Amino acid sequence: MSAAGKITLVGIGPGSVEHMTARARSAIAEADVVVGYVTYIKLVADLLEGKEVVRKGMTEELDRAVSALEAAREGKKVALISSGDAGVYGMAGPTYEVLFQAGWTPDDAVQVEIVPGASALNACAALVGAPLTHDFCAISLSDLLTPWPVIARRLDAVARADFVVALYNPKSGRRTRQIVEAQRLFLRHRRADTPVAIVKSAYRRRQNLVFTTLDQMSEQDIGMLSTVLIGNSSTFLRNGLMVTPRGYANKYDGLAQGGETRDGEKPGRSLSTGLLGWLHALREQVDAGRSVAELACEHDLPEDYIAATLAEPMDGAVEPVGAEDADER
Amino acid sequence: MSAAGKITLVGIGPGSVEHMTARARSAIAEADVVVGYVTYIKLVADLLEGKEVVRKGMTEELDRAVSALEAAREGKKVALISSGDAGVYGMAGPTYEVLFQAGWTPDDAVQVEIVPGASALNACAALVGAPLTHDFCAISLSDLLTPWPVIARRLDAVARADFVVALYNPKSGRRTRQIVEAQRLFLRHRRADTPVAIVKSAYRRRQNLVFTTLDQMSEQDIGMLSTVLIGNSSTFLRNGLMVTPRGYANKYDGLAQGGETRDGEKPGRSLSTGLLGWLHALREQVDAGRSVAELACEHDLPEDYIAATLAEPMDGAVEPVGAEDADER
Repeated sequence: MSAAGKITLVGIGPGSVEHMTARARSAIAEADVVVGYVTYIKLVADLLEGKEVVRKGMTEELDRAVSALEAAREGKKVALISSGDAGVYGMAGPTYEVLFQAGWTPDDAVQVEIVPGASALNACAALVGAPLTHDFCAISLSDLLTPWPVIARRLDAVARADFVVALYNPKSGRRTRQIVEAQRLFLRHRRADTPVAIVKSAYRRRQNLVFTTLDQMSEQDIGMLSTVLIGNSSTFLRNGLMVTPRGYANKYDGLAQGGETRDGEKPGRSLSTGLLGWLHALREQVDAGRSVAELACEHDLPEDYIAATLAEPMDGAVEPVGAEDADER
Repeated sequence: MSAAGKITLVGIGPGSVEHMTARARSAIAEADVVVGYVTYIKLVADLLEGKEVVRKGMTEELDRAVSALEAAREGKKVALISSGDAGVYGMAGPTYEVLFQAGWTPDDAVQVEIVPGASALNACAALVGAPLTHDFCAISLSDLLTPWPVIARRLDAVARADFVVALYNPKSGRRTRQIVEAQRLFLRHRRADTPVAIVKSAYRRRQNLVFTTLDQMSEQDIGMLSTVLIGNSSTFLRNGLMVTPRGYANKYDGLAQGGETRDGEKPGRSLSTGLLGWLHALREQVDAGRSVAELACEHDLPEDYIAATLAEPMDGAVEPVGAEDADER
């Protein structure tokens, strides 16, 4: 009886050997069978000698997952490779769906491991400067499996809430209008000159970086190998680098208008806009006669949320001024 | 005259040698000076022989960036290390801010390189199953530099728009209420039994995974080394694995109620809810006498957006049924 098989979903990163993790390489090296889209198979060609290689073309991910399970049930070790991170618009979700439908459980003889990798947004960001820095979203403009209104609501919501946004699958030969709609939605909330970077083939031979602005985004050369990064209201372009400053230390309540962070911001001031300072201020406003409805409007937050958070007792401890939050960096 | 110095911002991934990229290791190996938070310095101890090591404690990122620039100006190669990816709540943004303030430009003798790595959300996701899969956001609950209302609006927006959400810096000794507020906001839009995973120290010695639900999220043991992953409306927990299915292939217009994707969904049906199918349907509804206001309400999209997209001519090409979109996976 052969040894138990295994399926390893490997995120190979942006697609250069240098940017693969040691575990990604060892997982491929250990495998008997390597399955993946032909472009990624080529990227790991040096590791494939003596192995069974299953090159999947432009077919459904489910086919690749099914092949992997069949081979693993024969006792083989299978490496199923994705560009970037297998969990981000990659093979991880579809593979587990196939496994569950086939009756697999974690107690099964066939083991499953997911090897994390840097996703396209991380790789592209590293090339253009420091566009992410803080809160960000990833949205796919591929509407084959997701209805357009769902995507549109997501685009509008994150544009309004001032996230940095990475657009995956921004455009293809057939999907040419989605990027136009994305631009339309973003322009409802963000300045026309908001920095946008379009990165093609990050860390690969045909790597290309284009810096533009939101109002010209949809006119750029964007294809299947591109990722689009849209800055938030503070993001700036300087000396050819796209940088998003941290937080809103220079502006009260996030009314950031762009530009760099100013030095000398006192910790006490920042703290007053943190949660506990904000709650104290809310209570003072209520005590002074302001209504919940007015406060909800002023802070652009739901009324029921304002009411609920006011109703919850504070635990009495106020963060001391200048205290260092032991946040890891 | 010494050779030109260099600053390399290295994302070391989750914090095990196996999950570092080859470039991350070579950048550290090449460096004369290695700067970083003491926890990460320890993780790369094997690479540090003969190097000047600057262990920064719990201080501002700006100090680390200033040290790096000073050393690089002396001609040294400096590796500035971050856990995860340097561009995600890491050193990249603060470093560029310091560099610009010091008059640096990309034409400077001092070179700058950012080495991408897998961020905490990728590493944590790989351990709990396939929670990301599709559109997701990262939000930091650290309100030291960002006013609470900005964070609250972001949480509410992405909860409503049905993103999978990763919470960074979810809780600390001093910041204990932010996670409670996050739960409150999410419960406005998402079921109480929405799967949540809390991952501590992914791929490190004290790694710990906890699976819970949204209504119990804030009661869990969450600390400085934790990342919280909140599922979307389709995410399910099965056999101890948290999985988000792709898209909404099983439900028209995204009214997903959770559960697995059904087989046999016809490409034609999916296509009808894609952008072009939706635009055709919109026009038909307008021709049948529906008002823009009604349609905006029905699709939960802004009226001005509906009006603008209807006003733009379609280019006449409808995506053929069953056409394969050459999306990379």
